Amino acid sequence: MNNKGQHVVLDAYFQHPVTDLDVERACDQAIHQSNMTVISQVKKQFSPKGMTAVWLLAESHFSVHTFPEQNYISVDCYTCGDEGNPMAAIDSLVRKLKPITANIQVLDRG
Amino acid sequence: MNNKGQHVVLDAYFQHPVTDLDVERACDQAIHQSNMTVISQVKKQFSPKGMTAVWLLAESHFSVHTFPEQNYISVDCYTCGDEGNPMAAIDSLVRKLKPITANIQVLDRG
Repeated sequence: MNNKGQHVVLDAYFQHPVTDLDVERACDQAIHQSNMTVISQVKKQFSPKGMTAVWLLAESHFSVHTFPEQNYISVDCYTCGDEGNPMAAIDSLVRKLKPITANIQVLDRG
Repeated sequence: MNNKGQHVVLDAYFQHPVTDLDVERACDQAIHQSNMTVISQVKKQFSPKGMTAVWLLAESHFSVHTFPEQNYISVDCYTCGDEGNPMAAIDSLVRKLKPITANIQVLDRG
């Protein structure tokens, strides 16, 4: 596989609390709508709330960390080669979850 | 947990092939030497070679993707709060694996 890729990170704040389940579902949908191939997913649910979830992709990975006390989530999506479109996935996530601020940074990799 | 964090990404090229096992061991050591707490690890070994491995950390995550045909690895280490030191982990990895080029980018998160 071509090792040139794109890495997109998102820092998003919400006006109102968003549940970990809603965040996870929105990430799942964003990944599938962007034609990425999920190999596996691993998740840690913290107590009483807060979550880390990572999807291993054929194209690289997608991760989300939630901080419900701060109404904040951090996301990164990294894909290699010509298959994935991490910006489309992040766009889809932002349209779905509607944060009040969404800071997006794009890195060229490889 | 404090949602302010640091995200360090590394693009490294080697003069000679490095095995997936050597990369994984070096990442493991770098994580432990930087006093991060591993919650779990997930890995995909591609055929005939090439690997994706992600460590979920109490402090956030560490990932590596190997591209043996290009003598290249891409790494990211993201930690939140005051606990982790992602730059120390990346430094440790570079000292251990001795790539011929190591491009490091540091992002403030949160």
